[in-house]
Amino acid sequence: MFSTVCVDGVVQRWEDLRLQDFAQGFFFGAGFFTTFRIDAGRPLFLSRHLARLRASLDAFPVAVRAPAPALLHEDAVRDSLRRGLEADPLLGPRFTGVGKLAVSDGRVLCTFRALAQDFDDLHREGRVLDSVEPGAYRRAERTVNHKGLAWFRQHALLPRLPLITNEADEVCELPTANVFVQLDGALVTPPLTAPCLPGVARAALLDAGTVDGLPVVERVVPLADLSRAQGCFYSNAVALAVGVPRLLGQALPGSLRLAERARAVLEASALREA
Amino acid sequence: MFSTVCVDGVVQRWEDLRLQDFAQGFFFGAGFFTTFRIDAGRPLFLSRHLARLRASLDAFPVAVRAPAPALLHEDAVRDSLRRGLEADPLLGPRFTGVGKLAVSDGRVLCTFRALAQDFDDLHREGRVLDSVEPGAYRRAERTVNHKGLAWFRQHALLPRLPLITNEADEVCELPTANVFVQLDGALVTPPLTAPCLPGVARAALLDAGTVDGLPVVERVVPLADLSRAQGCFYSNAVALAVGVPRLLGQALPGSLRLAERARAVLEASALREA
Repeated sequence: MFSTVCVDGVVQRWEDLRLQDFAQGFFFGAGFFTTFRIDAGRPLFLSRHLARLRASLDAFPVAVRAPAPALLHEDAVRDSLRRGLEADPLLGPRFTGVGKLAVSDGRVLCTFRALAQDFDDLHREGRVLDSVEPGAYRRAERTVNHKGLAWFRQHALLPRLPLITNEADEVCELPTANVFVQLDGALVTPPLTAPCLPGVARAALLDAGTVDGLPVVERVVPLADLSRAQGCFYSNAVALAVGVPRLLGQALPGSLRLAERARAVLEASALREA
Repeated sequence: MFSTVCVDGVVQRWEDLRLQDFAQGFFFGAGFFTTFRIDAGRPLFLSRHLARLRASLDAFPVAVRAPAPALLHEDAVRDSLRRGLEADPLLGPRFTGVGKLAVSDGRVLCTFRALAQDFDDLHREGRVLDSVEPGAYRRAERTVNHKGLAWFRQHALLPRLPLITNEADEVCELPTANVFVQLDGALVTPPLTAPCLPGVARAALLDAGTVDGLPVVERVVPLADLSRAQGCFYSNAVALAVGVPRLLGQALPGSLRLAERARAVLEASALREA
């Protein structure tokens, strides 16, 4: 992570931030965050990320102390990101990497990190998915729909990147990504009630409507149906879409091309929405 | 909370702690904590609290960066608490209140707060329990057995203090306490697989074996069985035991006496174990 950060729009040094200003986030995970890609200084899908943060704050008005609404206005956040990038020669106004907004204790913290770390560690293209975490979520479980600072359940599963299923053996998501499966002539992703996070890349693909000629639909995905899958990728706001050439032991060579098409759709959408 | 804290045994000021030293705890809830009562400078059940912290660290060796083992030895923690109390005239070596140990990022943070806050806010004797959070936990759900910094699910439920049940409509716990019910001539508390936290007061009562002549047993408690309850209290390491004079609409006047007896058992055990 870079040393330059913004708190409530003010550029600061990470090492100068005090724990006491983020105490409810630290002690109880009482906060929300969102992670997004920055391409040449341009944050992708920023308005969608902010809309989700605001929705999470609205959903838990007592448990999390929300910042002043103006601090989460898109223009304010865009300004704040720009000032942060311009303040640090290691970043600069044309920075490409990852931004993160964490909201807790009535504050908005924005941090930056390099893209490479995510990809070296986790999201290298052609990631094999061979593990299931059965029944880890319940259907309609409310906190899974919000990206909380209390992200420990997912954080603990992250190194193994298992498919998380619910008590009915339906696919929910991966610890840090939504799942898309080519099934019966459609590109299917589980509904929010599975439950799963309303991922920003997921929403943009659903809004786009088609990828590579396949209609993109929300539908319950029984784990057993994956044996009929013809392709698979996962999406998140940093990697956009990552192809899965092997899913639970089954080779899916078409996945890489499918993910490439999904990335193209997302990049085009991000440009339109910028 | 008091301004005097200890980090890795060193007395510091809360306002001097840096967020960067607790970053994994803040961003991911990747840490554990335990809260305990301090009576006249004596931490109650400290060795049990430390054993649970160590067990949680052992259970998640990758997800949470553990501190050096010596930092969680009982003598080291006892020394550290003593130095913290002696360093602050507002606390003092005979302080009565609440201590908290939070472990994340390879560090041990110890903080102090007044008892009054907990009791005014939440645990006033004779607390009525009239609310259920149905199916909030799944049976054998692993993270519920560990008191993580990612405590958001429970934190979000705290103001209402509902009985949390699992998908089979069995009682699990309260957001910050274990539940004991007088049922069929025994004092029954749900098993850890319900799931629930292995609370320190809960374990001490199970070890004691009887309260007011009733055998203390772990047993599945179907929500429907509460209609037959003859008494109820909840336990945690700060309030010890709090009587519930009304449980889901049913008057249980014997609960206050039962809780009083449970507190006496816990106080005696704590003295023996000190």
